[in-house]
Amino acid sequence: MDNYFKIAVSVDCVIFGFDDNVLKVLLIKCNLPEFANKWSLLGDLVRPEEDLDSASYRILKERTGLDDVYLEQVHTFGALERHPKGRVISTAFYSLVNIKHHQLKLDDNELHWHPVNEISEMAFDHKLILETCYERMQQKIREEPIAFNLIEKKFSLRELQNLYEAILGLKLDRRNFRKKFFLTGLLIDTHELEKDVPHRPGRLYRFNKSKYIKLKKNYFGIDF
Amino acid sequence: MDNYFKIAVSVDCVIFGFDDNVLKVLLIKCNLPEFANKWSLLGDLVRPEEDLDSASYRILKERTGLDDVYLEQVHTFGALERHPKGRVISTAFYSLVNIKHHQLKLDDNELHWHPVNEISEMAFDHKLILETCYERMQQKIREEPIAFNLIEKKFSLRELQNLYEAILGLKLDRRNFRKKFFLTGLLIDTHELEKDVPHRPGRLYRFNKSKYIKLKKNYFGIDF
Repeated sequence: MDNYFKIAVSVDCVIFGFDDNVLKVLLIKCNLPEFANKWSLLGDLVRPEEDLDSASYRILKERTGLDDVYLEQVHTFGALERHPKGRVISTAFYSLVNIKHHQLKLDDNELHWHPVNEISEMAFDHKLILETCYERMQQKIREEPIAFNLIEKKFSLRELQNLYEAILGLKLDRRNFRKKFFLTGLLIDTHELEKDVPHRPGRLYRFNKSKYIKLKKNYFGIDF
Repeated sequence: MDNYFKIAVSVDCVIFGFDDNVLKVLLIKCNLPEFANKWSLLGDLVRPEEDLDSASYRILKERTGLDDVYLEQVHTFGALERHPKGRVISTAFYSLVNIKHHQLKLDDNELHWHPVNEISEMAFDHKLILETCYERMQQKIREEPIAFNLIEKKFSLRELQNLYEAILGLKLDRRNFRKKFFLTGLLIDTHELEKDVPHRPGRLYRFNKSKYIKLKKNYFGIDF
């Protein structure tokens, strides 16, 4: 079997954040001369003693200081020439973090939050990995309320709609959006109002996670 | 980087077939003494010169003789102790084949089509891999008409409903099912009838694949 230990295994993390009404991704300057001045995803080789999830959590912890984040494995990329130093396959994860929660730890100059829609070139096949993870995430927020991981615990419906619009790249109808969310029964009214906003303060809500978990158990999906 | 070439990379294929109104999966007797008499998925180590998809297609071709099959990557399994011989991570694919199209090549005694619902124990973590791929496939047939890969080109609505019921593990309402499928506009009436069936012969249909591809391009998903 020795002949087969010729492929290295890595993980790459697409770390999404939401800031200033824009969906962003955390990138790092690539230090390989082949990709001078290009940005890359945060990733690392998997250590022999850690599984794939542990490797991703390690990278997230090292780079953002966060250790309780939403993480989902998406796809493994194994093209022959994807890494200039040799054969490396990479399992891609995406993660959703609240930018405000870890801003303090982010004093590493090499790191930068990029607006997802403004990224053209990247190192390796990381543009493809980013796109694949972004598509999966767009699909997922239509099915499950994962977007709440990206914002503060208390939010206005305006903020929530801005978030969905930024992720889906669509303009949504305000009344329809609100109606749909109220119908899910997953919003808890905090009876508080926004503060220090340049518009009429909106009411603040919380996401009813425990109710969602209960509903999910009873969900049978298909409507045949 | 040498230190990192300690993980071997494999692929495992969950090959689904539909036979006698039952969803089946193609398994092979495991030849490791640790898993004596247990069944396993069809898989192999990835060769240094092939990518992950190529490795899966190679296994399918070698085992079933088919080379034009539906194949989808699902998940990579990387638990530390999943393989008794050392660290092996495995990328799982599922595949949908028409059992009748390759029955002739399947004269290998080690291979067997098992009803998916009757499998209890398996070698390695293959039960988990099977379940993960089965769930993905159940999800996918709600979103895309992939199930047509499992049946003959011409089929009756009875056969189609049997297929969906077998995959979803649900009893579906006959009239509702037919109505839904006609509304998609994806069925072509062949103006032929079933032959040699123990019930009143049903009309035979074909799947309008080119129309589906066209529709898909115009599909925007979300109904906000």
